[in-house]
Amino acid sequence: MTPHEALQLFTKTLGNLEKWMDKAVESAKERSFDVEVLTHARLAPDQFAFVQQVQSACDQAKYAAAYLAGKPAPSHPDTEKTFDELRDRIRKCTDFVATVEEGDLAGAEERKVAPPWLGGRWLSGADYLVHMAIPNFFFHVTMAYAILRHNGVKLGKIEYIGSLPAREG
Amino acid sequence: MTPHEALQLFTKTLGNLEKWMDKAVESAKERSFDVEVLTHARLAPDQFAFVQQVQSACDQAKYAAAYLAGKPAPSHPDTEKTFDELRDRIRKCTDFVATVEEGDLAGAEERKVAPPWLGGRWLSGADYLVHMAIPNFFFHVTMAYAILRHNGVKLGKIEYIGSLPAREG
Repeated sequence: MTPHEALQLFTKTLGNLEKWMDKAVESAKERSFDVEVLTHARLAPDQFAFVQQVQSACDQAKYAAAYLAGKPAPSHPDTEKTFDELRDRIRKCTDFVATVEEGDLAGAEERKVAPPWLGGRWLSGADYLVHMAIPNFFFHVTMAYAILRHNGVKLGKIEYIGSLPAREG
Repeated sequence: MTPHEALQLFTKTLGNLEKWMDKAVESAKERSFDVEVLTHARLAPDQFAFVQQVQSACDQAKYAAAYLAGKPAPSHPDTEKTFDELRDRIRKCTDFVATVEEGDLAGAEERKVAPPWLGGRWLSGADYLVHMAIPNFFFHVTMAYAILRHNGVKLGKIEYIGSLPAREG
């Protein structure tokens, strides 16, 4: 998987997440509750709520794009409170990721990635992708999915995986 | 990320999962309940329980190794009922994954991967890894983690990510 394919996978998966949110809206309508209740839902009292899981998934994609391309990451303050605002956040994120083209990622795997939380140490771009961005991105989208499932939204593996480029012959 | 790095990431993450299980054992002892209760825990009645999440994570790693190397996957029947049996399952899985060496993966990204559930269609090895093995593997390990967290086991992002090959200077 090239760094560009990883960014495309993040964008595809955030598109899947928007479809899970559509299902949550339908489910709330059917069961006569306000879908925004789910923004506060969490699986444990000391864990992130749905809103923060979506914000964190977006940030993993945004920072991966920025660090791997050596571009500054745009600031996306965590102010979202509603499903519609979360959709805007996803769109801002995927719009930024889309500005990173394959050519911007030449040498990305050898790039020094030194996020502030590494306290002066660094990871190669390749290691950042393998050990941090990919596991962490899928952590937060799966937690968002798990919170919806736990609250009775009907979702299955097909919605999680989304489209597959399967071929005939 | 090369196919070999992906397999190494799966093995590392299954090692992290074993540490989450250690924490679950400690937590059960502290709170005076039988840890095996957690094997049946699930986040929704129509979702996999902890045992099946671990089995599924193992299977994603096993099949990725087999399909990408063009080797037959060993049969690992889903008979586990206890934490110790799940540890054996993880070990059987990672032992098999370790038999796939970098050289076995030459041309893996161009290989035709045609699992039975694709009904005669196929994915390239590269697409199988990006669109199926990686998202699905992290889905099941994150669900296992989420089930433990939901049941009060103290785990944090450091335990999820595990060791990082960060460098100085």
